[in-house]
Amino acid sequence: MEPERPVTGLEPRRLGIDTHQEAVVYLRADSPICRSEGFAAHSRVEVRLGERRITAILNVVHGELLAPGEVGCSEAAWALLQPKPGERATFAHPAPVDSMSYVRGKIYSQRLAEPQMDAIISDVTAGRYTDVELAAFITSCADGRLSHDEITALTRAMVNAGERIAWPYTRVMDKHCVGGLPGNRTTMIVVPIAASLGLVIPKTSSRAITSPSGTADTMETLAPVDLSIEALRGVVEKEGGCIVWGGAMHLSPADDVLVRVERALDLDSEGQLVASVLSKKLAAGSTHVILDLPVGPTAKVRSEHAARALQRLLEGTAHAVGLKVRTLLSDGRQPVGRGIGPALEARDVLAVLRNEPGAPQDLREHSLDIATALVELADIAQGEEARALALSVLQEGLALAKMEAICEAQGGMREPPASVQTHEVVAAHAGRVAAIDNRLLSRVAKLAGAPHAKAAGLELLVRLDERVSRGQPLFRLHAENHGDLDYALEFAQRHSSVVYLERH
Amino acid sequence: MEPERPVTGLEPRRLGIDTHQEAVVYLRADSPICRSEGFAAHSRVEVRLGERRITAILNVVHGELLAPGEVGCSEAAWALLQPKPGERATFAHPAPVDSMSYVRGKIYSQRLAEPQMDAIISDVTAGRYTDVELAAFITSCADGRLSHDEITALTRAMVNAGERIAWPYTRVMDKHCVGGLPGNRTTMIVVPIAASLGLVIPKTSSRAITSPSGTADTMETLAPVDLSIEALRGVVEKEGGCIVWGGAMHLSPADDVLVRVERALDLDSEGQLVASVLSKKLAAGSTHVILDLPVGPTAKVRSEHAARALQRLLEGTAHAVGLKVRTLLSDGRQPVGRGIGPALEARDVLAVLRNEPGAPQDLREHSLDIATALVELADIAQGEEARALALSVLQEGLALAKMEAICEAQGGMREPPASVQTHEVVAAHAGRVAAIDNRLLSRVAKLAGAPHAKAAGLELLVRLDERVSRGQPLFRLHAENHGDLDYALEFAQRHSSVVYLERH
Repeated sequence: MEPERPVTGLEPRRLGIDTHQEAVVYLRADSPICRSEGFAAHSRVEVRLGERRITAILNVVHGELLAPGEVGCSEAAWALLQPKPGERATFAHPAPVDSMSYVRGKIYSQRLAEPQMDAIISDVTAGRYTDVELAAFITSCADGRLSHDEITALTRAMVNAGERIAWPYTRVMDKHCVGGLPGNRTTMIVVPIAASLGLVIPKTSSRAITSPSGTADTMETLAPVDLSIEALRGVVEKEGGCIVWGGAMHLSPADDVLVRVERALDLDSEGQLVASVLSKKLAAGSTHVILDLPVGPTAKVRSEHAARALQRLLEGTAHAVGLKVRTLLSDGRQPVGRGIGPALEARDVLAVLRNEPGAPQDLREHSLDIATALVELADIAQGEEARALALSVLQEGLALAKMEAICEAQGGMREPPASVQTHEVVAAHAGRVAAIDNRLLSRVAKLAGAPHAKAAGLELLVRLDERVSRGQPLFRLHAENHGDLDYALEFAQRHSSVVYLERH
Repeated sequence: MEPERPVTGLEPRRLGIDTHQEAVVYLRADSPICRSEGFAAHSRVEVRLGERRITAILNVVHGELLAPGEVGCSEAAWALLQPKPGERATFAHPAPVDSMSYVRGKIYSQRLAEPQMDAIISDVTAGRYTDVELAAFITSCADGRLSHDEITALTRAMVNAGERIAWPYTRVMDKHCVGGLPGNRTTMIVVPIAASLGLVIPKTSSRAITSPSGTADTMETLAPVDLSIEALRGVVEKEGGCIVWGGAMHLSPADDVLVRVERALDLDSEGQLVASVLSKKLAAGSTHVILDLPVGPTAKVRSEHAARALQRLLEGTAHAVGLKVRTLLSDGRQPVGRGIGPALEARDVLAVLRNEPGAPQDLREHSLDIATALVELADIAQGEEARALALSVLQEGLALAKMEAICEAQGGMREPPASVQTHEVVAAHAGRVAAIDNRLLSRVAKLAGAPHAKAAGLELLVRLDERVSRGQPLFRLHAENHGDLDYALEFAQRHSSVVYLERH
């Protein structure tokens, strides 16, 4: 019989290594824990510190990077463990993640029942899945492999796994655009219009998944968006509306985990898209939601047929989980607005709110369509009367004033940053703009640095069907550094179909 | 116009961090490269050093872990870069991995044509895929989602991406067992029998994927298995046969990359299984192959129906790529042999080769079946005569002598290690052994430390249909440390169906 071994913990040491969101701990190969417990590189390990328990990937360290008695922590592990002075970490084999057997079942085309989906999402939220396991789950749900019931179960599971905001209002309005269209920053015009009309619209937005900017990224160039639920509540009580990042408040936190891996794969699954959208709305306490579905050959939704299918999926799931929803199909053949990238899109929004003559008219009109639909869904007015209400608050500057007030309430309004590097891409020959490839445009803007570099992206200088002459600028690249500009330019030059010119 | 920036590289520093096989480099957040090129944590980055170019995951380091002018390397990155004194590393954005768009197509149920499969496998082999992307590819091919033509294309692509051994013999024999059955170490008996009979049988084996031991793991407890192609050639010229690890010689190297992620997911896809098996055989220069398919409710192939389907897939693909193949269906309702785990299985093999009276008879008989089929496929003899040939070399000790000669030729024979911790799991009540769960047994052996811990695993002490009394030992756990033993024991106690006893 071996004598009981004393529990001697290791001292956490912050190594300053940023491993993105996956928690990593570093243990010496000769540590008694590695030897006695048989941990090997890339094992998952449960780390216990005070009351906190996290699952982390183990990297084994040879040599003198760590002193005996230390455990190294990546930035993500450090943030989760929040070590206090004197605390010592202990380690255990993590309990097997039983819900991965449901994922394997799903890969082999089995249906997931509600308790199974709950178990998966609960484990995902708790950080028990590795990135490789998350990728398998996401892939197994893509291409229509989730049934209607599975999507409803996924939506409910995602709401249950996080915080849920309760509002003392009977109608809590919301809007959401099912992405794929660069620019299209209607939220930042619709919210101040709706709030000016007395509607309650506490908008939580996401950051970019596979696009050059999410609404939260764009809004962040005007005001802070990382608000707590309490701070958000304060803004909404004061101004009737807000535009904040939903990720900061643990609404449907599984979504953020899944989105990170979807982003790495550049993949959106339809079922997860529906669950993602609706779970965020439910968790935010919304009751009435306008969903905007841009349709075009290079938008996320490529055909009217696909749009109708997605609409049924969204409306069916919304009904099953108790949300009032109206879906608008819109023109997605080209970007809405001129700018693509956080700061450039914010400039478009300000131009519309300020009623500047040069403001992008498509962005203005599309925002008014959505605001009108909100007024109707809230039963304030219908048809012409609804549109006149929305138009009047925009024209009279009330929406601008509301936006400024919202920015101040969120922590202070600021100017969007300007880029230091620009370059115009010009027409190689005269012709008519026959097609604009949203996806390639997005890639160009991303290569230029968006959304990470706030000022980066591009300004589209032509519209569909416009006639251009040889040498006329088609779009202007913006970057924060030389390397990114070259990279975006090289890609744009290799892909002439970004803006396709039909010869006269 | 910016002045041309001088190309100043960074000095590689070995941090001693074992990140498993994924190459990771560590750059200071304030390094000019991070700032000017816009690299962020978890970006993929191309690292250039001398003539070498690798793609690595970037971890960004804050603080003083690295000195200015240094780039940290994980063990995997260091092994790939092989820095020489004075060499300086430079960095670039890696070219976008275009073949990932084919993987996305596959996720959306598109067929992969041969050039697309070639592009994917070529990029996988070159290390351009992240683990998350590999997981998506593997998942998208699971559950029969690869067509016959796609499996053939995958097989050819996997052969083309690696080395191929050419032999000066018209018949190069081989055998392979489609796993799922613990123990079953027939290869190490069949190869010496076949080589004793003058057949050429250069056997390359794999390490465990999801099992407690692969043939290479088991053989390694008797002799070195990490041989170069040249060393393997020497062994085969001298002895007619060998049993080495295929992974060391870049035969179908994509398979090793895919297998690593399949192992992490505990997932085998049928199409990838066929391509994996046949590409290894083709690359090893084999011409005639016996495939052993154990069938049982808890084997990899669960029913005769599934076995026939897999047989068709294997034989059809083999025909398309020019391999002569014969498939044997065998009894997979329980393990073959007594030991499960590298060293324990090696002891079973030695007992059979030494004609010990207590040697596991099932392992002996099954090995003779396969050796007989090889003799027939090589057209040396048929039926009774073929079996008598195989039996005689085993009984006369020629096979044992051949095995010893092969081990010596591979670098020297050694004794399998013995475990330091054992524990017998006993029958909770009297009864008949009505079922043995291969999968649960494998998990128990893995939790005990196999295949990483060579001496770990278990000995099965009962057979199907045997009658046992209360307190009679059912299996004996072996572990190299206390922690692993406890972990395996706890799992075994929670799962009484590992060995299911029907009451009298």
